[in-house]
Amino acid sequence: MDTIGIAVCGCGTVGSGVVRVLTEQRERLTARTGRQLLLRHVVVRQLDKARPFRVPRELLSTDWRAAVRDPAVQVVVELIGGIEPAKSLVLEALQAGKHVVTANKALLAHHGQEIYETARRNDRAVAFEASVAGGVPIIATLGQSLAANQILSIQAILNGTSNFILSAMDEHGWTYEAALAEAQRRGYAEADPTLDVDGSDATHKLAILAHIAFGVAVPFDAIDRQGIIGISELDLRFARELGYTIKLLAEGWLKDNTLALHVAPVLLRNSSPLARVSGAFNAIALVGDIVGETLYQGMGAGQMPTASAVVADIIDLAVGRAQRTFQSLRLWSATPPALTFCKAEMVSSRHYLRLLVRDEPGVLSDVTRMLAEEQISISSIIQHEALPEHDSAIVPLVIMTHAAPTYRFHRAAKRIDLLPSVTAKGVHYTVGD
Amino acid sequence: MDTIGIAVCGCGTVGSGVVRVLTEQRERLTARTGRQLLLRHVVVRQLDKARPFRVPRELLSTDWRAAVRDPAVQVVVELIGGIEPAKSLVLEALQAGKHVVTANKALLAHHGQEIYETARRNDRAVAFEASVAGGVPIIATLGQSLAANQILSIQAILNGTSNFILSAMDEHGWTYEAALAEAQRRGYAEADPTLDVDGSDATHKLAILAHIAFGVAVPFDAIDRQGIIGISELDLRFARELGYTIKLLAEGWLKDNTLALHVAPVLLRNSSPLARVSGAFNAIALVGDIVGETLYQGMGAGQMPTASAVVADIIDLAVGRAQRTFQSLRLWSATPPALTFCKAEMVSSRHYLRLLVRDEPGVLSDVTRMLAEEQISISSIIQHEALPEHDSAIVPLVIMTHAAPTYRFHRAAKRIDLLPSVTAKGVHYTVGD
Repeated sequence: MDTIGIAVCGCGTVGSGVVRVLTEQRERLTARTGRQLLLRHVVVRQLDKARPFRVPRELLSTDWRAAVRDPAVQVVVELIGGIEPAKSLVLEALQAGKHVVTANKALLAHHGQEIYETARRNDRAVAFEASVAGGVPIIATLGQSLAANQILSIQAILNGTSNFILSAMDEHGWTYEAALAEAQRRGYAEADPTLDVDGSDATHKLAILAHIAFGVAVPFDAIDRQGIIGISELDLRFARELGYTIKLLAEGWLKDNTLALHVAPVLLRNSSPLARVSGAFNAIALVGDIVGETLYQGMGAGQMPTASAVVADIIDLAVGRAQRTFQSLRLWSATPPALTFCKAEMVSSRHYLRLLVRDEPGVLSDVTRMLAEEQISISSIIQHEALPEHDSAIVPLVIMTHAAPTYRFHRAAKRIDLLPSVTAKGVHYTVGD
Repeated sequence: MDTIGIAVCGCGTVGSGVVRVLTEQRERLTARTGRQLLLRHVVVRQLDKARPFRVPRELLSTDWRAAVRDPAVQVVVELIGGIEPAKSLVLEALQAGKHVVTANKALLAHHGQEIYETARRNDRAVAFEASVAGGVPIIATLGQSLAANQILSIQAILNGTSNFILSAMDEHGWTYEAALAEAQRRGYAEADPTLDVDGSDATHKLAILAHIAFGVAVPFDAIDRQGIIGISELDLRFARELGYTIKLLAEGWLKDNTLALHVAPVLLRNSSPLARVSGAFNAIALVGDIVGETLYQGMGAGQMPTASAVVADIIDLAVGRAQRTFQSLRLWSATPPALTFCKAEMVSSRHYLRLLVRDEPGVLSDVTRMLAEEQISISSIIQHEALPEHDSAIVPLVIMTHAAPTYRFHRAAKRIDLLPSVTAKGVHYTVGD
């Protein structure tokens, strides 16, 4: 029986999960691949650190270069995260003739092109199912199951931390700060949660999905990005009153060879499938020109869901399938499709606008005139009496618009902010279908 | 560039869709496979029939044997449906050294073993993504993306016609007959809808999924089967009152090496993701021992969603991936896992029981005593006044139980039916989690 030698580099949460599956499920993996998957190295930073799962001492080392060059290794699994040394490790592994499995979205989003080209030159494969939505097989679905389709749109919840925070605020009425603290307590959010809550993590993942879905490398900056930092429970409350909830969505649309991408908080109708994805789950809605609407849902991160994806990639390499998938993924191309990027602002959308205004005559007339001047019509409006947390002379005013190009709405919103009766910068979000 | 010759056998709804994609999307398919996918034969029953999509006259023939034996054909696509001549065609194609793509669930559910063995002997592959839930890549997910997992449970809406009927009854208060007529008018249900509404179609699909998920061939009769024929809007109404809806589910559970499978109407809490899958959509919830809960959703049938799956399989064969997947699918095995089948009756579940009883003293006491004697405890009970459609002396009594082995509940239900104050056979369904 053939043996496939594996080096796991990085043994944190996900790495420990992978080591656990490879050692505890040997029989299962042999039955499913017809090969022996043999763990040969577990590369760590510190040999003596306590680990969530006991790793046989003789497999542990701190020298990734030696592991990557070991002729008995065919598959290198990169689970270090971040750019360096992960990038050097992946490139050296490919140059040494190893296949690579990685869960590193930042690395692929920023240096995918170089990594894919290096793999191609060395006739090796890079498999990265675990880099986006661990428990959801979205890379295989895009690259393989929907291969007959041109993908027309992606709408996805890709950051479990943000989704947990928004769900907790919506369901329990918590503040942003309280929800973030709870996410950290549960281990969903890092000590420094910036990349999660500023939208960067979802942007990395969207860049990877868009590359496969649309066949073009997506520069990080081509994706408009807005996170959930400081989002107010007031807006979740008004959204609920209107029959909506707020989700951090990663969205992409292809129309007339123009591709618009953004990550932003979006109001979704409660009846929409994505609105109901709560807590640390991820979900991706795809529309293909042949298959129509499809939806995929599972745990977005966490030790075992991500390990499941990493080991699926190892199995795929062991049976020789990932190599063929990688070749057909259009991750490089002498003639990429002739797409242009456009700002998400250019896309037409409905909008939610929440203002805090002085309770005096003429305010509504001023605000609605500025929207009218941009030819934006209003679909609903709520004005309540002053809220207990505000000055009694200040009232919240919530406007939902009909669809209009976002840049026009933004122009109106900027002018509205300058009105003397508007006491704070308006808060606005796009409204999904 | 390599050329892959394709024979499409059967040119009804799905066949026309496949021919359309193969002819209209040639450039796309070449880009994604690095090969030329060349349609060489379209085999039909009648040459001159009007078709939804124009097929080049020179490709049409009525002789499937000639098409299947053509040395210029590498992939035979079987879209005839039913057992014969589909079975002979598939077997002869494999024997002639062709790979086979099929959407034929009845054929695979009843004769899968023979077909898979024939493929293996001839070193060919059978790809059948389109046989279950057309627009949902569930075969690839089970066979590949979740390959690191032992699947623990399947819970699925697999018959779009039944789901459409139940959704229409629930949402519009229609009768079963009216909803069925509408499904037929829209082309979801066949002129003879028996296989859809008696649960056979979902049972075929569950047999195929279970074979891949659990690694054992599932005899059709190992699956307890109950369809939705004659389901009453009265029960949908009571379910709604209790916060539930009724769905035709295909379910499988693996526990302690014992496998229980059934197809039946099941009450689902409105908050459960499957409860919200309405109309002609299909959805599959899988639990894997490593990945946890996952959910997949898309159009279950229809021309283009199914064509998307068929063409994905053709692409998979063209790039050489389906061959490797087929070999690793555990569709045969000298040593299949040591599983025993058990009747779904043996599984513990909550139950819904709706009786029509005479409005007289002692009824409730008799009914609850019979449940108590089987050690089944009651979680809620509704007794309304007589309904307009019934005799004023007859009232509906609805009982929801706590979890108990289903066979015990059935025993109690049979005794309850014999009570003189119970005027009609009780209607009962299991209640999902």
